[in-house]
Amino acid sequence: MGSKSPGPGAGPVVVALGGNTLLGEHGPWTIEEQRDAIEETARSVAAAIQDGHEVVLTHGNGPQVGNLLLQQESAPDTPQLPLDVLVAETQAQIGYLLQQALDNELSGGRDFITVVTQVVVDPTDPAFEDPTKPVGPFYTEAEADEKPFETRKVSSGDRPYRRVVPSPEPTAVVETEEIDRLVERGDLVICVGGGGVPVVRREGLRGVEAVVDKDRATRVLASDIGASRLVILTDVEFAYVNFGEPDQRPLRNVPVDELRTHLENGEFAPGSMRPKVEACLGFVENGGELAAITSPENLEAALEGRAGTRVSP
Amino acid sequence: MGSKSPGPGAGPVVVALGGNTLLGEHGPWTIEEQRDAIEETARSVAAAIQDGHEVVLTHGNGPQVGNLLLQQESAPDTPQLPLDVLVAETQAQIGYLLQQALDNELSGGRDFITVVTQVVVDPTDPAFEDPTKPVGPFYTEAEADEKPFETRKVSSGDRPYRRVVPSPEPTAVVETEEIDRLVERGDLVICVGGGGVPVVRREGLRGVEAVVDKDRATRVLASDIGASRLVILTDVEFAYVNFGEPDQRPLRNVPVDELRTHLENGEFAPGSMRPKVEACLGFVENGGELAAITSPENLEAALEGRAGTRVSP
Repeated sequence: MGSKSPGPGAGPVVVALGGNTLLGEHGPWTIEEQRDAIEETARSVAAAIQDGHEVVLTHGNGPQVGNLLLQQESAPDTPQLPLDVLVAETQAQIGYLLQQALDNELSGGRDFITVVTQVVVDPTDPAFEDPTKPVGPFYTEAEADEKPFETRKVSSGDRPYRRVVPSPEPTAVVETEEIDRLVERGDLVICVGGGGVPVVRREGLRGVEAVVDKDRATRVLASDIGASRLVILTDVEFAYVNFGEPDQRPLRNVPVDELRTHLENGEFAPGSMRPKVEACLGFVENGGELAAITSPENLEAALEGRAGTRVSP
Repeated sequence: MGSKSPGPGAGPVVVALGGNTLLGEHGPWTIEEQRDAIEETARSVAAAIQDGHEVVLTHGNGPQVGNLLLQQESAPDTPQLPLDVLVAETQAQIGYLLQQALDNELSGGRDFITVVTQVVVDPTDPAFEDPTKPVGPFYTEAEADEKPFETRKVSSGDRPYRRVVPSPEPTAVVETEEIDRLVERGDLVICVGGGGVPVVRREGLRGVEAVVDKDRATRVLASDIGASRLVILTDVEFAYVNFGEPDQRPLRNVPVDELRTHLENGEFAPGSMRPKVEACLGFVENGGELAAITSPENLEAALEGRAGTRVSP
């Protein structure tokens, strides 16, 4: 399998795991369902490693951080931790389950290591003026009014309100050097979980109540460690144009310019396919060899440029 | 300060942080109180690093894992995660706050890295037959009867029952090699949080519902990475004989044999000073140069053999 071009050995590859690759199709999820979904994803990742790819894993955390928010709100006498700390917790929650499943798939060979990761954002990022990212539980209007944080009406029904937080652009991964050295030495790393813990540099590092998009943060890491390839795993094999229409068309091998035109035409859903496409474009425009969006079972083929939506310079 | 013997440069030193070094004196703790306690501890650790010591940090997690148990029980419609996953969460919760405080103290110099750590226990450990370690919230007898896990009456009053879990002996740290290589390369590592996530090796790694004593797990790590010194930080400057009696006497420089005799005479409280003394003895008996028990403000002096209860071969 390793004979196709671009083959293994050309530099580390960064693989971002979307929520469905960690939890399965629909919630609520028991721990057994989570383990099953993670084990299935781990099999695809382990196969790529056994093919010779040096894999760095990142992952989302939306439902997990939402559950932690709901749980601590349900126990108001316990310490109510800010969002940055909860994001850190999800990094270990998911990282631990992933690393155990991967270590078992690689059975005694190499071990994965999960690294708590902070991601720097700019305190003057306009996102802080206009929090738009919904997190945590749904509230009634009366409940929302009493919350000590900003809420917005985000749906209909009895409980249409949710907390909204800023989703600023990531500018750097604090642990880049350490991750880079781990990867150079051949360690397998899980990092930048949930887009990383958002921090600002202001008399040192300081956590902020925000969430960073995991595809954006993954792109910054991938560029900064000089990854050769970036693969974003999600629940579909391709990004589509005219998605959901009778004439929807999967994008396979797509030039940078064409993909950017589709993006500018509003082809991709914000908060879903759009940040994935932006991450792929950003990666290739910053020197990456190949970026792809696909489903876990197509990971190996995507790394060889044979599956998924592929972008190259 | 670095001129005293044994001076810096003789190998990594492992420093274990007790609960009070992370949370302050008494709960309940707000996040601000936690940050303050952690920043104070970070100043002592940073000073030792600036003196030239290569520090590996470990830490406890008792109150933190208890809060996570209480929080998820308070939200029964959210996924109820097993204890191994919750221990992992506390590693990142505490590790993140510690690494941020330490990075700020070291201001732009070196960065700490927090590693999710699994600790292997023996599935035939007698602790699994007799769970004795209380974790999480207190229950009434009626509440305790309805719980899907083992509870015991551990105090008096209206809510004298708590969940009890096994506290087996740690036999190995899964990530030892990775931590060892990080340390060799000069990275500053936080690991083995809460005694590590307990796992058994049985067709691969599998998490178990248990907690591992953090001092015991720290000792295993310290021996296995060939640390020169082990310092266990707690809320007192010394271990005492006849503690709490009019003739209580602090132990300063204490030979291995004398300390073992005190231990066998039941001088040290189980679950408190006893595991610390056992860890110090085990470390020195496994080739360590110096082990000490003291309070955070005495860390530097203890590393130089000038403060705290010191044990050497």
